[in-house]
Formats: sequence, C-alpha cells, structure tokens
Amino acid sequence: MIDTHQYGPWAVIAGGSEGVGAGFADELSRAGINLVLIARKPEPLEETAAQVRANGVEVRTLALDLLSADAFDRIRSDTDDVEVGLLIFNAGANSYGHEFVSGDLTGFQGVIDLNITSQLQLSHHFGARMKERGRGGIMLVGSLAGYMGSEHQSIYAASKAFGRIFAESLWLELAPFGIHALELVLGVTRTPAMVRAGLNFDLPGMNVAEPEDVAREGLAHLADGPVWVAGGNYEAAQKRSGFPRDTLVQGAAAGMRRLLGRG
Amino acid sequence: MIDTHQYGPWAVIAGGSEGVGAGFADELSRAGINLVLIARKPEPLEETAAQVRANGVEVRTLALDLLSADAFDRIRSDTDDVEVGLLIFNAGANSYGHEFVSGDLTGFQGVIDLNITSQLQLSHHFGARMKERGRGGIMLVGSLAGYMGSEHQSIYAASKAFGRIFAESLWLELAPFGIHALELVLGVTRTPAMVRAGLNFDLPGMNVAEPEDVAREGLAHLADGPVWVAGGNYEAAQKRSGFPRDTLVQGAAAGMRRLLGRG
Repeated sequence: MIDTHQYGPWAVIAGGSEGVGAGFADELSRAGINLVLIARKPEPLEETAAQVRANGVEVRTLALDLLSADAFDRIRSDTDDVEVGLLIFNAGANSYGHEFVSGDLTGFQGVIDLNITSQLQLSHHFGARMKERGRGGIMLVGSLAGYMGSEHQSIYAASKAFGRIFAESLWLELAPFGIHALELVLGVTRTPAMVRAGLNFDLPGMNVAEPEDVAREGLAHLADGPVWVAGGNYEAAQKRSGFPRDTLVQGAAAGMRRLLGRG
Repeated sequence: MIDTHQYGPWAVIAGGSEGVGAGFADELSRAGINLVLIARKPEPLEETAAQVRANGVEVRTLALDLLSADAFDRIRSDTDDVEVGLLIFNAGANSYGHEFVSGDLTGFQGVIDLNITSQLQLSHHFGARMKERGRGGIMLVGSLAGYMGSEHQSIYAASKAFGRIFAESLWLELAPFGIHALELVLGVTRTPAMVRAGLNFDLPGMNVAEPEDVAREGLAHLADGPVWVAGGNYEAAQKRSGFPRDTLVQGAAAGMRRLLGRG
C-alpha cells in the first residue's frame, strides 16, 4: 500500500509517459495520488495521462525537454499551487554514447545536464518544500550501469554513479525530517526506450524485468533507502561493486563485446 | 622507476603546487620529465617550480583558476608546442559543503564544474593526443569520499564517484592504444589543504598518509589501473563499497558525527 499521507496529494514524475514512468503513474493514480507528468513527446504523455485519469485522480501534463532554458520555470508554474509529496526522477538516458577521447564534449555535456544537473535542480526545489512540511519522498531512478566503467558509455555510467552516491547523501540528510529518499537501480527492463535501443531481450541468461513490476517494487520500497536494486539484480549490483576492479571491469567489457558480436 | 618513454617528455599537473601535487612534481622531475604546473595561487606554485627545477628539468607555471573562462585556452597555449605524455588531475576539492536542499545550487555547481567538467575537458584534450601517439598516462586523483553518500558533502562525494567510474571507462577505452589510465584514491593525507580544512590527524585509529608517499605510490602504479587505492586504504574502499547500504552509510555518518562532536 502506498502511504498517501507521506507521498500525496501530488506526485511529479519526470519521464512519466512510458515504460517504468508510466508504471509509476498507474500505481500512484490507483492509490489516489494526483500527478504531474513530464515528458518530451506530447503523444505518449497524453495517452498515459488519459489512462491514469480513468483511475479518478487529477493529472497535469507538461510536454517539455528538461534541458530547455525555461523547463524549470514551466515546472514551477505548473506545480507551485499544489503540495508535491513525491518526486520521481525517471528522465535520465544515455543520449550520447561514444568513445570518450574522440567523442564530442558537447554531446557528453548533454548527458551530464540531464542526468546530473536537472536531477539536482528538481531534487533541490521539491526537497526543500518537503523538508518544510516534514513529509515526502524522492525517488531517483538509476541503473546497474552506474556500478562500473564501460566502453562507449563512460559519461552515462559515471553520471549514474553520481546519482547513487547523491541519493545516499540525500537519504542521510532528509531522514531526520521525515522524508524518504531512494535510488531505484534498474537492470535490463522491457521498456520502449530499451526496445528502441535495440536490446536483445532473448539472450540466454539475461534477467529481463517488466516495467510495471519494477515500478511497483520501487514504490513499495520508498522507505527502504538509500538504494533499492530492482528486478532481482541485488547480487549483480554487489558483484559489480566488488574488487579487484581490473578483472571485473575487463570481464564485463569482454562479455559485452561478445554479446554485440565484437568479441 | 618512472617510464619516461611512456609518460614523458612533459607532464601536466593540475593542482601541482602543494601537497600530493608537489609530490608528483618532485618525483617526475627526478625522473627527468619536464613539467607544466597549474594552480591558483602564484606563490606556492613558483616555490614548487623553483624546487623541482633544481632537479634539472624544464618547468612551466600557469597560475589560473580552472573555472575561469579562459583557463582551457591558456593551458593550450602553454602546452601545444610540447608532447604531454602524462596528465595528472589533482585539482578537485570540496569548495562548497552544505546540506543539499537548503544549500546554494550555484555553490554546488562550482564543485561539479571543477571535479567533473574541468577534469573531462583536460582528459579529452590530452587523451586524444596520447591516443594518436600510442603512449601516455592519465591519472585522476580521487577520494575515499567517493564510495559513500555523506552529510554536507553530497555533491563532492557524488562527483568523486563519477570520477572513479569515468576512470574505469577511460582505462578500458585507452588500454588498446597503449595509454594507462588510473584513478588514484586518497584517504586522509597530511596535505596543506586538509590541514586548512581543520582535520585532526591525531585521532586514534585514523590512518594518515604523507603526501610524498602517496604521490610516489600513485606514480609507481600508473600501469595498474583502473583504480589504485593509496595509503593502505584498500580494505577501507572495499568496505565502503559493500552492502547493505543503509547500515554502512548510516554507520559511517554516525562515526563522523562523533568525531565532530555532534554525535
């Protein structure tokens, strides 16, 4: 059961139109929590909004790119009049993957701006108001990719490591004020984004989670911070945190090269 | 012995005026590697430069703030005519520590600009040239703080987690081209910066390293990437990477509160 006193009456979901984000919206609306859904593309956003409105809650939609100059002002003007008890930051993506030294620094900066800067701004804004009220929750969606360096996604992986340790600090600092902070670590999940990225979900031994299951699991464990590894990947996260780093990092990279037929 | 063919004829040390940075300069100059030393304050910079020039190498000094708008142009104009075989990024610092939600986002951004953005820019620039030449080394100086969230240094700790995973990716991507990438993780070290920060080095049980020892150790292990934990802190790093995160992070925070008399 979702604690509507702790996390209501409104939740903001950045990246709330499809996949795990749509799963959060469905679960929260069934619990009676009103929603502000933020995503770039209007069509899937309106589709998800219509579906969750059918659960009887108020739903506001905000079609915007979090990296646009007026994004924060628009979010404020759409949320300043309501009490946001839950922020879910589910908008991170690897918008630019490339070998680092030959890559485009501007492309890498876009990954940082979304996964780090935008996440900090929203956590700061809504977190400060939750602290005043003495209740609320912040869920930052992370990735198993954040536990290890890897080829052609150096900045994405590093930004996800940033998010994990940032979530741990938020959890420590906000717990005395009655606020739950959690990083929800995702493994391979059957989301539209991962389908578009061309992931082969049928590879033998691959642990694939369904977005609705992951969303439900994350919301059920909001109070169990600072980090919740979803979809049965707890042991994988432990392994990826281990030592020695050289054999672990090289071993994972070799496995990835084989999967991609580049081994 | 420092491999001057691999890491010479010039090394750039960002944060090269005192503490561990001065230790790197001393060691490298004794091995016959010429130096470009970068630091904010001219006086300690010139002092260190004079000392290492006595070891018989060429030394250029560049007194600048890495966050200033012309920093990168000035570094290029001082290094474009020489072959830089080694980049040491030792400039990161926690320039702004505060509870996150009540802190100043601009202050936090300064920590990100130095520890992340500036480090990426220099690694990108010098790393691309090393890749062309098929030799070289990149050492990024990190911190045990990057393994765990903590109170009042959320962004510093998170940026150090970013640096660790970034170094692992660089190591993977650059090894096939003959370049060594390493994150050198420091624990408590008797540097002027840590003395200024008011650290009590005499606390019972605290493992304090000397800057010269740490510098020597890091240079000796440049080829042993992706991560080298200096000063006898390998087990501490393993412990801080462990699970479950709640008891570990809360336990470390409680210990820190006791040390600071806030327990």
